Amino acid sequence: MGNTSKVMKKIPYKIYLTEEEMPKYWYNLKAVMKELPDPMIHPATLKPCTSEDLAPIFCRELIEQELNTTDQYIEIPQELLDFYKMFRPSPLVRAYCLEKLLDTPAEIYYKFEGTNTSGSHKLNSAAAQAYYAKKQGIIHLTTETGAGQWGTAMAMACAYYGIDLTVYMVKVSAQQKPYRKAVIETYGGKVIPSPSDTTEAGRKILARDPSTTGSLGCAISEAIEVALKSNNCRYVLGSVLDHVLLHQTIIGQETKTACEKYDIKPDIIIGCTGGGSNYGGLIAPFMGDKIAGKNDIRFIGVEPASCPSLTRGKYAYDFGDTGQTTPLLKMYTLGSGFIPSPNHAGGLRYHGMSPIVSKLYHDGYMEARSVEQSKVFEAATAFARSEGILPAPESSHALRVAMDEAILCREKGEKKTIIFGLSGTGYFDLSAYVNYNSGTMTDYIPSDEDLEKGFASIPKV
Amino acid sequence: MGNTSKVMKKIPYKIYLTEEEMPKYWYNLKAVMKELPDPMIHPATLKPCTSEDLAPIFCRELIEQELNTTDQYIEIPQELLDFYKMFRPSPLVRAYCLEKLLDTPAEIYYKFEGTNTSGSHKLNSAAAQAYYAKKQGIIHLTTETGAGQWGTAMAMACAYYGIDLTVYMVKVSAQQKPYRKAVIETYGGKVIPSPSDTTEAGRKILARDPSTTGSLGCAISEAIEVALKSNNCRYVLGSVLDHVLLHQTIIGQETKTACEKYDIKPDIIIGCTGGGSNYGGLIAPFMGDKIAGKNDIRFIGVEPASCPSLTRGKYAYDFGDTGQTTPLLKMYTLGSGFIPSPNHAGGLRYHGMSPIVSKLYHDGYMEARSVEQSKVFEAATAFARSEGILPAPESSHALRVAMDEAILCREKGEKKTIIFGLSGTGYFDLSAYVNYNSGTMTDYIPSDEDLEKGFASIPKV
Repeated sequence: MGNTSKVMKKIPYKIYLTEEEMPKYWYNLKAVMKELPDPMIHPATLKPCTSEDLAPIFCRELIEQELNTTDQYIEIPQELLDFYKMFRPSPLVRAYCLEKLLDTPAEIYYKFEGTNTSGSHKLNSAAAQAYYAKKQGIIHLTTETGAGQWGTAMAMACAYYGIDLTVYMVKVSAQQKPYRKAVIETYGGKVIPSPSDTTEAGRKILARDPSTTGSLGCAISEAIEVALKSNNCRYVLGSVLDHVLLHQTIIGQETKTACEKYDIKPDIIIGCTGGGSNYGGLIAPFMGDKIAGKNDIRFIGVEPASCPSLTRGKYAYDFGDTGQTTPLLKMYTLGSGFIPSPNHAGGLRYHGMSPIVSKLYHDGYMEARSVEQSKVFEAATAFARSEGILPAPESSHALRVAMDEAILCREKGEKKTIIFGLSGTGYFDLSAYVNYNSGTMTDYIPSDEDLEKGFASIPKV
Repeated sequence: MGNTSKVMKKIPYKIYLTEEEMPKYWYNLKAVMKELPDPMIHPATLKPCTSEDLAPIFCRELIEQELNTTDQYIEIPQELLDFYKMFRPSPLVRAYCLEKLLDTPAEIYYKFEGTNTSGSHKLNSAAAQAYYAKKQGIIHLTTETGAGQWGTAMAMACAYYGIDLTVYMVKVSAQQKPYRKAVIETYGGKVIPSPSDTTEAGRKILARDPSTTGSLGCAISEAIEVALKSNNCRYVLGSVLDHVLLHQTIIGQETKTACEKYDIKPDIIIGCTGGGSNYGGLIAPFMGDKIAGKNDIRFIGVEPASCPSLTRGKYAYDFGDTGQTTPLLKMYTLGSGFIPSPNHAGGLRYHGMSPIVSKLYHDGYMEARSVEQSKVFEAATAFARSEGILPAPESSHALRVAMDEAILCREKGEKKTIIFGLSGTGYFDLSAYVNYNSGTMTDYIPSDEDLEKGFASIPKV
């Protein structure tokens, strides 16, 4: 029955690991998966991408991580650990007040990644990517940002390592969030609303549809185009790819250490899924144990009903960007031509999904659920008022399902332990809260016809 | 030479106390001061205010705390400690990266109060005031807010305890910070830009100057007027008064415990001074020891050159509000008629200063310094890029002087230990950063003639 002294330990409101307890390794899920995800392939040759194929776009060590299928643990370099210590470990919080509000026998915990200025988990990978760029002698990075967290995180990381940064920001986000731009600029980053006339890809999209509100896929095309033009410049991506998910496993590693320290045994782990890295990072070491038959945890990925890649997408090879310039990824996708309705708030707007998360879903290791945004903001407001923290719209998708599961526990009289990822704060996403408060928020569920239009852009491979 | 095992302990980036180590008592400076501040007096009788005088405005137990001059330690109720545990303890951070940037032999620490959603220390007193209101059966609270932190903090506290809240928000802040309003509303608070036509005081000020950008003093008049109209309603104030400073001593209590745990011996402690409660709370237990002859710490209160109550004000009895309705406080003041230039960013706009801080300054226990805002934002940007956190404009006043002192240490080759209060984040104050980034920020120093106009409003007592 384990260590009784552990069982007796009172669980504090916030569990903080010490710096010494911080994980020194990322967790590489691919090394433990029974079947590997299909490899990234080159769109021209349809052969698996090699390091040489990717070298003009990405930094060298990140490519090695991307292609690594053998090492279960990958060491976090000491210089990077020192940066992590500025904003980590993040707390695992016992949601005592939310439990009381819901009158549930369930124990609810959330891993809170919003304590740094970028406001989200994104800084975990931004820090790593800037570190490896610096090590390689790269002096300029380009990237895209949707809701803005990733752009802010990269700006913080580039400020720390002294690297120039250009951020292509999805136009609708740039308009909804002028202050995100101000933060990125305070950290020295340059912000360009996308699509822009600074790239071929942007000009092409603008010519086709001058009034487009933009998309992550389109911003990616622009950022990659700029990176390819110079040998001292590389592109960095905030989600979807395996190396990004790898960096985010520090979330799951810390969570697992905290659970072991206090003998917490999760029954359900829930995360929101945009590109999948926050969710994948949170579940990684727990999922590894499940694959090894060591636990029977239910994993739930939650996405917006307006951009339902897991629940309504196709599992197929697709481009990562609207410009159709990237390698092909085997993933659940709505098609790179899919553009979510602008009435959808915040992030989780991406057409595809992490190949690792996609494969786990396809093989039945996890569940997926879609939720409508008015229900999400209802949960967000209840959470803010009870737990104090104003959550990001994205994270509130996970919160919504955590609350639903806790309510189910009340109805069934079951005492389950639920952990969800509170991946960030909503401090820079207040226009969506303004809409919700004023009663003008609407829900959007694409029709089958809407989805067919997106699917038509998926290449025949 | 003390305990060697303590001296050897490596100082982590962030010192977090455990929940068990959290202080269970506030520190009442008045119980240890050699001379007490002159008492609050009634403007009609010029006699010291009694509990009965104050009871229609403030909650009962808060008045007891306000008038308590004898108990050095005042117990924090368990139900309030439970609320504190949701957002405290706050970290004492070693500014390793800032030290490196400044190439200084000084050790720099900051007590960071910005990890909660209100973004500042204000929640410490908001939580306490809402708790005592609830206990007394009060169902409606009114208050004012300048930069917005206090209004947000009160909204969070009132959401927690289920109390209605009306916030009079200084008009210029309401205009500069639309999203602050959104946050307050998400927590269920009602926001009214001040001066407004909802009160006698507001209508009077508007009649005199319809284009006024408002002031804290004016918003206070409005909030008190509403509170006085109902027996179930009371007024709460976010700074200046002794009971507010008392609640903020949890900052200093935690800081002192952390210093003792790691054998940190501060030479200089620095805080920004608006109404004085954040600064007073940070220094309290250290100042108590200084008064008792147990240390020789230098204490520095930092204020904006545009609103220089300590450095250029008069030490006199004055009203707390522009409407001249409050009891008279003996304090450093620019006169309740003083309205700082609207080009001044964020908080620290108040005409007066905490009577306790004023007395300590008057009696020579501390220093005061004023700084110009362009220098403040220069420091804020350097701090953001090196330490990661985007600081509040207010807190950056303390940061500016901490950096100046650390630079002095470099020039003189002195290894001093500096602690400053990073009282909050700048996430909701980005318009000032936009100004600074675009090079349009200007400084303002009132002329002696400007000050004379304010002094003319100080009553002859």
